[in-house]
Amino acid sequence: MQFPSPVSLQWIAEFINAKLVGNTNEPATGINEIHKVEKGDLVFVDHPKYYNKCLNSDASFIIINKETDVPEGKALLIVENPFDAYCKIVTHFRPFEPANKMISDSAVIGEGSFIYPNAFIGNHVIIGKNTIIHPNVTIMDHCIIGDHVVIQAGTVIGSNAFYYNTKKDRELWYKKMPDCGRVIIEDFAEIGAGCTIDRGVSHDTIIGRGCKLDNMIHIGHDTVLGKNCLLAAQVGIAGVVTVEDGVTLWGQVGVSKTLTIGENAVIYGQSGVGSDVAGGKTYLGSPILEAKEKSRELVWVKRIPELWEKVMGK
Amino acid sequence: MQFPSPVSLQWIAEFINAKLVGNTNEPATGINEIHKVEKGDLVFVDHPKYYNKCLNSDASFIIINKETDVPEGKALLIVENPFDAYCKIVTHFRPFEPANKMISDSAVIGEGSFIYPNAFIGNHVIIGKNTIIHPNVTIMDHCIIGDHVVIQAGTVIGSNAFYYNTKKDRELWYKKMPDCGRVIIEDFAEIGAGCTIDRGVSHDTIIGRGCKLDNMIHIGHDTVLGKNCLLAAQVGIAGVVTVEDGVTLWGQVGVSKTLTIGENAVIYGQSGVGSDVAGGKTYLGSPILEAKEKSRELVWVKRIPELWEKVMGK
Amino acid sequence: MQFPSPVSLQWIAEFINAKLVGNTNEPATGINEIHKVEKGDLVFVDHPKYYNKCLNSDASFIIINKETDVPEGKALLIVENPFDAYCKIVTHFRPFEPANKMISDSAVIGEGSFIYPNAFIGNHVIIGKNTIIHPNVTIMDHCIIGDHVVIQAGTVIGSNAFYYNTKKDRELWYKKMPDCGRVIIEDFAEIGAGCTIDRGVSHDTIIGRGCKLDNMIHIGHDTVLGKNCLLAAQVGIAGVVTVEDGVTLWGQVGVSKTLTIGENAVIYGQSGVGSDVAGGKTYLGSPILEAKEKSRELVWVKRIPELWEKVMGK
Repeated sequence: MQFPSPVSLQWIAEFINAKLVGNTNEPATGINEIHKVEKGDLVFVDHPKYYNKCLNSDASFIIINKETDVPEGKALLIVENPFDAYCKIVTHFRPFEPANKMISDSAVIGEGSFIYPNAFIGNHVIIGKNTIIHPNVTIMDHCIIGDHVVIQAGTVIGSNAFYYNTKKDRELWYKKMPDCGRVIIEDFAEIGAGCTIDRGVSHDTIIGRGCKLDNMIHIGHDTVLGKNCLLAAQVGIAGVVTVEDGVTLWGQVGVSKTLTIGENAVIYGQSGVGSDVAGGKTYLGSPILEAKEKSRELVWVKRIPELWEKVMGK
Repeated sequence: MQFPSPVSLQWIAEFINAKLVGNTNEPATGINEIHKVEKGDLVFVDHPKYYNKCLNSDASFIIINKETDVPEGKALLIVENPFDAYCKIVTHFRPFEPANKMISDSAVIGEGSFIYPNAFIGNHVIIGKNTIIHPNVTIMDHCIIGDHVVIQAGTVIGSNAFYYNTKKDRELWYKKMPDCGRVIIEDFAEIGAGCTIDRGVSHDTIIGRGCKLDNMIHIGHDTVLGKNCLLAAQVGIAGVVTVEDGVTLWGQVGVSKTLTIGENAVIYGQSGVGSDVAGGKTYLGSPILEAKEKSRELVWVKRIPELWEKVMGK
Repeated sequence: MQFPSPVSLQWIAEFINAKLVGNTNEPATGINEIHKVEKGDLVFVDHPKYYNKCLNSDASFIIINKETDVPEGKALLIVENPFDAYCKIVTHFRPFEPANKMISDSAVIGEGSFIYPNAFIGNHVIIGKNTIIHPNVTIMDHCIIGDHVVIQAGTVIGSNAFYYNTKKDRELWYKKMPDCGRVIIEDFAEIGAGCTIDRGVSHDTIIGRGCKLDNMIHIGHDTVLGKNCLLAAQVGIAGVVTVEDGVTLWGQVGVSKTLTIGENAVIYGQSGVGSDVAGGKTYLGSPILEAKEKSRELVWVKRIPELWEKVMGK
């Protein structure tokens, strides 16, 4: 998330009670989770395993629970519990805003758009022109919907990222990370009925221009779909996935987190995508293989009895 | 869709700016998409691959982008872009009707039926007697719900057909085909929570008498379920599928488009049905096999190490 | 279900027109379906296959369609159609209560809890403190939601059990069993968007303390999740399943009915759990295997061509 305006490091250090070292002249322009950081960003790290990744990332300011050398041009904010500090900052800039109307006063709805009864449009939502929102749709705060978009009944845009701080040595293992990202639905995208599209943890979940989603599709936080993707019913995509332009996913395909599906790839129904797949090809199976390879494998399995008979006799 | 009353070919030709040839005396009684046409219907075709199928179908009047011989007793409406002509006609007879009430004035609700708060009942919907519609249900325009039906919370009846005109040489690859079909839920059918049932493209999606659907089931456009079918949670059925009487589909089964599942067939959980399956049998797997055949296959796979040892040595 | 106060057997016998034999001094304290009965309970049985199971269960009073020896200390209520008698009693004590408000007058909502617009809260629902209910959520009658719970948009709590009396020699094969159980969501549990959690048939469906459920998850009737379980999107669990503490189910996992998943088990995405699995291990596949065993199996399948070549020649 970008801050509304740059924030001085001194203010942040005082707010989270941190020891501030390094280049403290530049203000922070935003705060982000490590999987997507930019120059000017605050980021946090609390596990030694990720110290180097964070210190060497594009982030300029690192909230950390260790005294260490400051990378050139950067600053450290040293605290005992970086996760709590991160949560405190995010919650300050993105506080819980109650809603008591179906369409919030701060929502902006473009000319020619039609909102059916019973659709909920949260705070600061922006909806473009000639867009149709069906009944019982929920669009949570800060999401952005383009022009000529259709969102069908019962769909939820901007549900919370499924993203937890996990520690199994305490009574409650999972502690939700407050999310401050958005969902952006680009122009001419159409979303079927009963879908759920989670907001980004700190960046945006994006459904590209001209994408068509069937019913009951789940899209995880920070996942980005390119242009002209076609997703059939009951597809599920985890968080931080990149689906490039022109990809087709048939019904009930499942996609694991943080991977990339290349341009124009086609994945057949019920397949499970567990690693990056190259574009321009067709895939099948769980675990997934190129379709022709998987088809050969299925033929080989059918030949086992023949092989058995030859080797073992009848 | 049937027209409210027969429409003269001369009016249609002028409306879509078509050249009219052949038997122009009979009026058109309806307009349908090629997968389900009857005598008296208008149909369209724009791809040479499908010219013959359309010209030889039961449709009486063909909107086509080619000068060709007129089949006996039929008429052609020749235009440059048949898809646009089809859309223009459908949109004329089934225009977008805004909705600004939770229960539309044109909806008819039978005696003894109960509509919970927050259910949306669209224009021209007909609901029978002693039927219960739970909260946050959406029933879109023109759908027909029988007697003694239960539709549980969050379910969407009559979402749009997921059906697109596809051309990958333009900026937006997918152009939605306007649908004019309905969903018909017959008497004593029960639909669980969070389901989505798409309307037919030009005909009807039908859930047969006494069918029981669990939660989160997706039914595609123009699919027809016979009587007494039982579908467990998270089943997904694509478009134009025929499910005969008494079929059982267990949880998370996926069914591809345009196929038939025979009477009393039983499909076990997570199976993928990719081709017609005969009735009276039990099936398993993705791709699907008869259950006993699939079970044998699983046993054969477990024997590979034994075979390997015999052939290759330890 | 427990009765509001104990009910005399004489009253019940008259109400369902039953012949009463055995120990008729004690009153019935509740009525339950055979899979979960306690001392003091009424239960019903109508199929000879289950006579012994019912007569020897913990239930004190058996509605049965057969004259038979009365087990010691128990009583029989002999009727022609035990299922109808059971339904009549359940419907008497748990009658259909219409709802005409979004938040029923009999609902109790704790301090600090926030209900978004358009959430439906049914009769006799109890919601704890500091809980957030998002828009378009449906919570049906009698459910109990704890403190510090989040239920995201479009989710349905307390949908009907998918549980039918089946007889294929009548016109309508499936007859719904009226349910009188509840859903209980314990403190600090979080439920994603678009989920459906069915109420118990006669007992409770329980989501344990600190469980985190992603979007579009289906939980069947009478299923119990322990503490700190983590379920990813599109998981489906059938009825009467026991998921012990600390279990992780990744995306699109399917779980069959009446089984147990042991403590801290981890099930990878798209797996199908068809039988009990021991705790502390990791599983994969449909049908499921221990992950390391399944991985070996996948390797063996890839070796078939090598085996074929050795045995059959090129």
